[in-house]
Amino acid sequence: MAKVTANDVARYAGVSQSAVSRVFTPGASVSKAMEKRVREAAIELGYRPNILARSLITGSSRTIGVVISYLNNQFYPELLELLSRELRTRGYHPLMFIASNQDDIEEVTAEILDYQVDGVVLASVSMSSGLADRCQAAGIPVVLLNRTVENNAFHSVTTDNRSGGALIAHHLIDNGFKRIAFLAGWEQASTQRERERGFLDAMHKRGVSLHSRGVGNFDFDMTKEAVRQMLQADTRPDAIFFANDHMAFAGIGVIEREFGLRIPEDISVVGFDDVPLAAWPSFELTTVRQPAESMVLETLRLLFDNQQNQEPQHIELAAELIVRRSCPQRSGDTE
Amino acid sequence: MAKVTANDVARYAGVSQSAVSRVFTPGASVSKAMEKRVREAAIELGYRPNILARSLITGSSRTIGVVISYLNNQFYPELLELLSRELRTRGYHPLMFIASNQDDIEEVTAEILDYQVDGVVLASVSMSSGLADRCQAAGIPVVLLNRTVENNAFHSVTTDNRSGGALIAHHLIDNGFKRIAFLAGWEQASTQRERERGFLDAMHKRGVSLHSRGVGNFDFDMTKEAVRQMLQADTRPDAIFFANDHMAFAGIGVIEREFGLRIPEDISVVGFDDVPLAAWPSFELTTVRQPAESMVLETLRLLFDNQQNQEPQHIELAAELIVRRSCPQRSGDTE
Repeated sequence: MAKVTANDVARYAGVSQSAVSRVFTPGASVSKAMEKRVREAAIELGYRPNILARSLITGSSRTIGVVISYLNNQFYPELLELLSRELRTRGYHPLMFIASNQDDIEEVTAEILDYQVDGVVLASVSMSSGLADRCQAAGIPVVLLNRTVENNAFHSVTTDNRSGGALIAHHLIDNGFKRIAFLAGWEQASTQRERERGFLDAMHKRGVSLHSRGVGNFDFDMTKEAVRQMLQADTRPDAIFFANDHMAFAGIGVIEREFGLRIPEDISVVGFDDVPLAAWPSFELTTVRQPAESMVLETLRLLFDNQQNQEPQHIELAAELIVRRSCPQRSGDTE
Repeated sequence: MAKVTANDVARYAGVSQSAVSRVFTPGASVSKAMEKRVREAAIELGYRPNILARSLITGSSRTIGVVISYLNNQFYPELLELLSRELRTRGYHPLMFIASNQDDIEEVTAEILDYQVDGVVLASVSMSSGLADRCQAAGIPVVLLNRTVENNAFHSVTTDNRSGGALIAHHLIDNGFKRIAFLAGWEQASTQRERERGFLDAMHKRGVSLHSRGVGNFDFDMTKEAVRQMLQADTRPDAIFFANDHMAFAGIGVIEREFGLRIPEDISVVGFDDVPLAAWPSFELTTVRQPAESMVLETLRLLFDNQQNQEPQHIELAAELIVRRSCPQRSGDTE
């Protein structure tokens, strides 16, 4: 069909051209009545707003690149849904990129830049300096969500994972556990390293040593195998701290269904994240809550307040211990 | 910085301009070596490919709008991850829109069109004819994923939900259950209606009548309440078919943890979807598998093969019964 212009729509709807432009500018203010009137005229005439042309002029595509490595850990769909909703209220939408592994990241980044996104959120993705260079060269703000990197080249938003690990150590020691085990996630991940470090430091301060340690790599099946080995050992742990909830769910399955042990009577379980499933009656998992909503709000604040060459900020939000059936309070307080 | 052109990059990298253009055209073929060489030059010069300008000319934004109503049902993150990966191999990426309810849809659609997406995938979203008009006026193909609509105005891809419901009825009857209950999802959803219809038709053909029926609305807490009521009745069901896995997980929690009943000894449970959690040792849920990957591939085929004014196609993929511990095979065969 012949190219219909905003002018045609304005004339047809009997409104000003700026009204039409506002209706088709994400985030711009316009009355519902005006919106309805303009959109109906646009449909009538088959008008498609020239958001791309406007993007060329403003240099803004109204999209934020969101890179997520995997959605099977329930924490990430939760973050993605919150990000989506919050971006939308600001007139933006997430352009999704699934990065399956570290090698992938360079390529994914190149793709993201090609889309001229207004910013990039990297959730649970391992970083590379190559990525930093590319984004900086392109002047695109980047925020790491639930991850930090050695070189601190980026803004990042995490929970205080070290304090979270410490909260769990104190909870287990206060409740009289004697054979405390730790099941590690992917050892390259900052979240895993910080949680374990806070946990072991607090254990050490209290003069308690670790009974045993396994590695689940944040992977469901690897975790099941690691737990089997722990439970087959001569002396079994009386409590296991899993570096995230996703691994704890694998462990609970093995403990209850394969070994017929009772939680918490025979063995107690603690996770980290407080994903929605943690509250399910099948798990009632004691865990450390990551404040997902605050994490997303802080991420967007860093993204949109971003100044060129601004010093990278590292936001750490408070961790909170959530006590449930899998490792209940017996004595003392949760500190 | 001064605007760097593809020409500058070509000269700097010592390659042809069309090589540069191919590197920055999603889906275009280019050797890894060439890609590396061009991208390094681009970073060196701070070049940003003019994908938006190209989009204006080609009329393609290389994005597909994906509308999802909620991610708490594990089936949707699974679909989203598959969609993401498959779109990427075709040089596209999903632009995400979360639609929280039916009213929302009109507004979301308007937003999607503003982004000049090349197509729209509606997963688990209730439709409206207004949406059809807008997309048709804009010449944008739409495919419904895991949903159909009365008026059949759109392409749609689903599992054969009616046959799936029938498979479950036969499995329960073949295994000698006498008090079979059904827990319904959101009754406006085509998936819920088709599953129940296939289930009840098969029960009727076998001369078996329903013991009891509840409504969980695809909602976790509503399902828990509906199951409590079923279990408090004078005669308890000996098997419950939940209209999706997500509701079955809520039911299993109530049955085992609140009522201390054993699955499957005291009561058997069947779901629908076969999400990853269904295979977890805590659930080992008997369910009907939706072929998520084939559903996504069919969705993209309809999206990209789309001709203007083409008759809407409705693709129904075969359902498969997956028998696990929550309702094992006792006698007869699963047909």
